[in-house]
Amino acid sequence: MKISDLGEKELIKRLLKRSQKFQSHPLFLNTFLDDKSFKSRSDDAALIDLGENYLVATSDMLMQSSHFPPQMTAHQIGKKVVTVNVSDIAAMGADTIGMIISMGLPSSMPLDYFDQMVEGILEACKDYGMVLIGGDTNESSELTLCGTCIGMVAKENVLMKEGIKPGDVVAVTGELGLAAAGFELLIQELEGSDENSFDEDFEENSEEDFNSNDNNSLDVFKDTALKHALEPHARLEEGVLLGKTGYLTSATDITDGLLSEVGELMDANPGIGMKLHQSRIPMDPELFKLADALGKDPLELALSYGEDFELLLTVKKERFHELKKVVNEAFEGKVILHEIGMADSSGRISMIDKDKKTKILTARGYQHLTDSS
Amino acid sequence: MKISDLGEKELIKRLLKRSQKFQSHPLFLNTFLDDKSFKSRSDDAALIDLGENYLVATSDMLMQSSHFPPQMTAHQIGKKVVTVNVSDIAAMGADTIGMIISMGLPSSMPLDYFDQMVEGILEACKDYGMVLIGGDTNESSELTLCGTCIGMVAKENVLMKEGIKPGDVVAVTGELGLAAAGFELLIQELEGSDENSFDEDFEENSEEDFNSNDNNSLDVFKDTALKHALEPHARLEEGVLLGKTGYLTSATDITDGLLSEVGELMDANPGIGMKLHQSRIPMDPELFKLADALGKDPLELALSYGEDFELLLTVKKERFHELKKVVNEAFEGKVILHEIGMADSSGRISMIDKDKKTKILTARGYQHLTDSS
Repeated sequence: MKISDLGEKELIKRLLKRSQKFQSHPLFLNTFLDDKSFKSRSDDAALIDLGENYLVATSDMLMQSSHFPPQMTAHQIGKKVVTVNVSDIAAMGADTIGMIISMGLPSSMPLDYFDQMVEGILEACKDYGMVLIGGDTNESSELTLCGTCIGMVAKENVLMKEGIKPGDVVAVTGELGLAAAGFELLIQELEGSDENSFDEDFEENSEEDFNSNDNNSLDVFKDTALKHALEPHARLEEGVLLGKTGYLTSATDITDGLLSEVGELMDANPGIGMKLHQSRIPMDPELFKLADALGKDPLELALSYGEDFELLLTVKKERFHELKKVVNEAFEGKVILHEIGMADSSGRISMIDKDKKTKILTARGYQHLTDSS
Repeated sequence: MKISDLGEKELIKRLLKRSQKFQSHPLFLNTFLDDKSFKSRSDDAALIDLGENYLVATSDMLMQSSHFPPQMTAHQIGKKVVTVNVSDIAAMGADTIGMIISMGLPSSMPLDYFDQMVEGILEACKDYGMVLIGGDTNESSELTLCGTCIGMVAKENVLMKEGIKPGDVVAVTGELGLAAAGFELLIQELEGSDENSFDEDFEENSEEDFNSNDNNSLDVFKDTALKHALEPHARLEEGVLLGKTGYLTSATDITDGLLSEVGELMDANPGIGMKLHQSRIPMDPELFKLADALGKDPLELALSYGEDFELLLTVKKERFHELKKVVNEAFEGKVILHEIGMADSSGRISMIDKDKKTKILTARGYQHLTDSS
């Protein structure tokens, strides 16, 4: 049996399960390792009990071949390794303290490329209010960046995956599918450049489907989608604010797609299910046009791709309206909480489609969806 | 210009220098980022000010091709990624709290190999009194393990590179060159296995040089050297004890070779030099025999290889005798502090050889040594 037969999430679960065997060792510094610390190991980031606060730590490794499209600049690569780690910190309601970057670098990398990557790292650290506190470099055949972000959160403000009650409102912090559309654009651009036909093909599709006014707004949307794919931003300030309200019952960041993250929340809350409303999934009207031009299902872009780095959260029903107002005011209308459904005790994900029919979905993604109504 | 023209240590310095431009950002959480935090960025691990304590964090990435000899088992690979990180924590006088491991895994890796690697990681975490608190897995062409270790130390016990005064005793926590000899054995074994002639060659050399009694003790020593190369151990308990005495003026761990680390200490203490005594460099008598059989200079093995994970430290002269006694008692004679020289204000590394002649060495290593007496 090979590890590819299991997949990433199963491997991590296997690793953490084995880790539990080792919990009861007498040498453990019990100050730092209470029940809360252990629970956190299945969360977005690890929590370490510091008395009034939790220290929050997370580490994510990115590889050239699987995480950086060829069109991504060195500066954008630097920013991305910081952002993916900060997003995990944000999902815990924590603020950032510092970043450590370990690098595997091809020896042929131009120094100028290295410098631009470092500028991207430092600029992102600054954007997220922290400093680069360490790093190491190694020679590697493939560019490999491993970021570790350290943050902190007052205990009463921590956001975790566990804690959902039936009846809680399920919400997201922004529109979904943007980054997915951006990645599809990048992929088709590459395929097109092989055949030297992408631009024409795309223009042709566009002309068929939209008038010139539409094309202008679609071009603007294309740029937005590309920016989301190439320069994602973590919802750090939003996470900190959401944690401070005390209204949330759970949170995580959407890196692997909405359905996958809904599945993660359900795994952390046995027995809990979620009923989502297709019409409430926040998607830009232009996404439907772009998806059409790309030959993709817009709902699949929104549900199964990820990389949007929005936060997925659950809130006590009676607090949702107030929370939405707090967020709206704090970010001057630039961040809007979108209610997409409700937690229940069904233990499964159901979606009410536009014809009011209920479908049962799997966390694996929209493509495995089964009609059952 | 390519990054290979600069080398790892220069790249890190370049990175941290650029990072300083970003220090004065108003968003910084100043509680965590005082002068001490910044200073620590050139140290073995980053320090974050938590009031009475420092949080200590370090990250090291290891690659199959450059860090794991083909003879290293999956279990040993798992242990090593923990040990190299713990060694940095130990060098700060800190104790461990938790470990995060990010993995890049070839998809063809057998699940059994993955499990053994994880067992190695968990066993090492247990040995060093901590737990695995997180991880992530990715697909990668080459096995890549990035470890992050988090520790803590009371402020008054922290060990740093800075603080050396002329006259301080320079010491190490154990014999040097063992791991180097082990790696040379592994390399020659591989070369030999290509030609199917290693065992005979080695036996032949051995027979020439030693009688059968010597061969027995050399075989035992070979096993010790191989164990040091394949299963290194970090001086965690020693580092914690050394920090608590308050007698040290600096410390670091020897990962890149004694001379390289002496150079690191000097970089952190401008104007400081070190005078070392060749006869005091702790080397097992068997190392000379094994080096001879391997066709290597034993002194070069001890000074320029590294991977022994011993601690290099400086101590106030009047405290050294007492410190040595404390260490001896705490570890029941199993750990001995070896005085190898003295700090001075020469700004350079000199070594008094067995003929009482003084040579000037460079931090780059013994191979670049210049005769100047």
